[in-house]
Amino acid sequence: MTLAGLRKSSPLAMAQIYNFSAGPAVLPKQVLAQARDEMMDWHGSGMSIMEMSHRGKEFSGIAAEAETDLRELLVIPENYKVLFLQGGAHSQFSMVPMNLLRGKQTADYISTGLWSEKAIAEAERYCKVNVAASSADKNFTYAPTQNQWKLNPAAAYVHYTSNETIGGVEIFDTPDTGSIPLVADMSSHILSRPVPVGKYGVIYAGAQKNIGPAGLTIALVREDLIGQTITGTPTMFDYKIHADNGSMYNTPATYAIYIAGLVFKWLKARGGIAEMERLNISKSSLIYGCIDSSDFYSNPVVVDNRSRMNIPFTLRDSALDAEFLKQAQENGLLQLKGHKLIGGMRASIYNAMPLEGVQTLVEFMRHFERTHG
Amino acid sequence: MTLAGLRKSSPLAMAQIYNFSAGPAVLPKQVLAQARDEMMDWHGSGMSIMEMSHRGKEFSGIAAEAETDLRELLVIPENYKVLFLQGGAHSQFSMVPMNLLRGKQTADYISTGLWSEKAIAEAERYCKVNVAASSADKNFTYAPTQNQWKLNPAAAYVHYTSNETIGGVEIFDTPDTGSIPLVADMSSHILSRPVPVGKYGVIYAGAQKNIGPAGLTIALVREDLIGQTITGTPTMFDYKIHADNGSMYNTPATYAIYIAGLVFKWLKARGGIAEMERLNISKSSLIYGCIDSSDFYSNPVVVDNRSRMNIPFTLRDSALDAEFLKQAQENGLLQLKGHKLIGGMRASIYNAMPLEGVQTLVEFMRHFERTHG
Repeated sequence: MTLAGLRKSSPLAMAQIYNFSAGPAVLPKQVLAQARDEMMDWHGSGMSIMEMSHRGKEFSGIAAEAETDLRELLVIPENYKVLFLQGGAHSQFSMVPMNLLRGKQTADYISTGLWSEKAIAEAERYCKVNVAASSADKNFTYAPTQNQWKLNPAAAYVHYTSNETIGGVEIFDTPDTGSIPLVADMSSHILSRPVPVGKYGVIYAGAQKNIGPAGLTIALVREDLIGQTITGTPTMFDYKIHADNGSMYNTPATYAIYIAGLVFKWLKARGGIAEMERLNISKSSLIYGCIDSSDFYSNPVVVDNRSRMNIPFTLRDSALDAEFLKQAQENGLLQLKGHKLIGGMRASIYNAMPLEGVQTLVEFMRHFERTHG
Repeated sequence: MTLAGLRKSSPLAMAQIYNFSAGPAVLPKQVLAQARDEMMDWHGSGMSIMEMSHRGKEFSGIAAEAETDLRELLVIPENYKVLFLQGGAHSQFSMVPMNLLRGKQTADYISTGLWSEKAIAEAERYCKVNVAASSADKNFTYAPTQNQWKLNPAAAYVHYTSNETIGGVEIFDTPDTGSIPLVADMSSHILSRPVPVGKYGVIYAGAQKNIGPAGLTIALVREDLIGQTITGTPTMFDYKIHADNGSMYNTPATYAIYIAGLVFKWLKARGGIAEMERLNISKSSLIYGCIDSSDFYSNPVVVDNRSRMNIPFTLRDSALDAEFLKQAQENGLLQLKGHKLIGGMRASIYNAMPLEGVQTLVEFMRHFERTHG
């Protein structure tokens, strides 16, 4: 009997699913259960969070607590503003040059994949972009080390994508750019491991991978970089407006902030970011171990840059892709299809993916290899 | 025994609350209950909506259905794009001039209150604004009729705020601006009554009043106005990018779209927008009737422009404001405090506010007048 057959014949078949979506992505079950229980009446208020004024004492408390918890989890220095914004990383691609050029004409960008390239294309609308290093020469399967970066001393800032969600390329060391502000798109690894926030000028992340629901974007901005936007910057793209108003200049994405706050509490209860890193190393090692011990599966990324969050892999025979996905689905392993630009498979294993989900995936991969290899 | 006392002594005290927040605001109980029931597992998918890829078949279906239902409810002509955006009306204040100036240098704005003024201030960053009419002369307690508007034939568009949420001033007739595109901020009355969409160039609305959760913004844009942004427009502020990608250029606010979709279905089941208008006339008439039959309460807005959605009112003696709000709260009537710019009280009675909520409020107002008048 196949593994799929075993699962199908069980009365519990499909009772446990694991969701490997790259984003929006799996959330902790405990968080969803609490959100369900509080949906109609938050803490005896008689209201759903969705129905509350963002300026009322209930929601103000929720937002303040979310910020406090995030500051604690990421050890954010006091001279950084925590901004709860909208518009995703795509909006940050414009907001970064609009706010950080500060009279300069050029910025350095490191290109390690699709998301870097998107950030570069948008910045080119506002300044001269110096691509200080690129791994396009090897199809974005590595990240150039800092000794390969050709930084421009006149650059207003240096931007890089610390985890490429599509290519599965992660940069673990924090680059040293001296007095030139360092900017990172951490959308797909924020909160998965400690980062030295104080070494960055701006860190930003869309929420929908490792934080909470889509529609919330978090930016951590060093205070001295705030308040010097270029002419024509929309008010909503000015970090200062949001910083001066505690992210309440306009109505923020209140429900998404509430869910993010629950995720922060879940992370704290699980031991914080250091513990998450330990688990993420374990989880990703299981999958890379399975891939490397086989000539049926492969992942093209150099070992030092293999992402702990997004693991693309291909089958030796791509004609089996559809069967792999079908059987995975039957075994409750969902959303494993790779990005259309890369093909193959991708397992995104954010903080909320339990170890059991990864173990089940690896078990399935080994079983599929045995029966189709 | 006072009304408050009666409610307090009941075992059901506070079991029923009514939420008069101006936004984020009350949502239909049925919608919240369905969201609660589907939180952990949407339609047997094993996933919460929040966990689903926005490009997967489940969420694509949800978004498509939401658009179809909205088109049906508002009778949106085929040559209009329905865009599910982020960033609230504040982002539209920039997007409208950035997209609609199309080589022209000036735009007409009608000023009827704070939200008009905000739109004007933002547009002035991008063009010469001609304030074609303003009710500032009477503290924004009326809307100038169209024969008072001094429109500029060279204007790229005419912008007005069809309901001022703070002042409670609503414009019911659709202005005729000939071939010059008409733009309306309908944030606080969209879906409360039929509007002739085909007479507008752009209609926009933040979701957090009459549609769903904060963080979603809906724009209806006539197709011929799309694709001529000014230099420097961020990609995310280009209607064309969102129109060409079915609002999925970037990850949209998926959960907010899902809730909005449930609200649209609730509206359809209740008889659609015409029935809503009938109910909204009934509800608002009850409160205005109470105010007008008393010299204890007053509302300063001229009768023809009295909003059906947001009803500000003051007590004869403002020293009683705190007591009014305290007793209202004790009777389950929440978030009635007026905006800080206006003071007094404000009852926001969107579609999801049941008739019983308005009846309870009026009963309480009469009781309070009897005991404190």
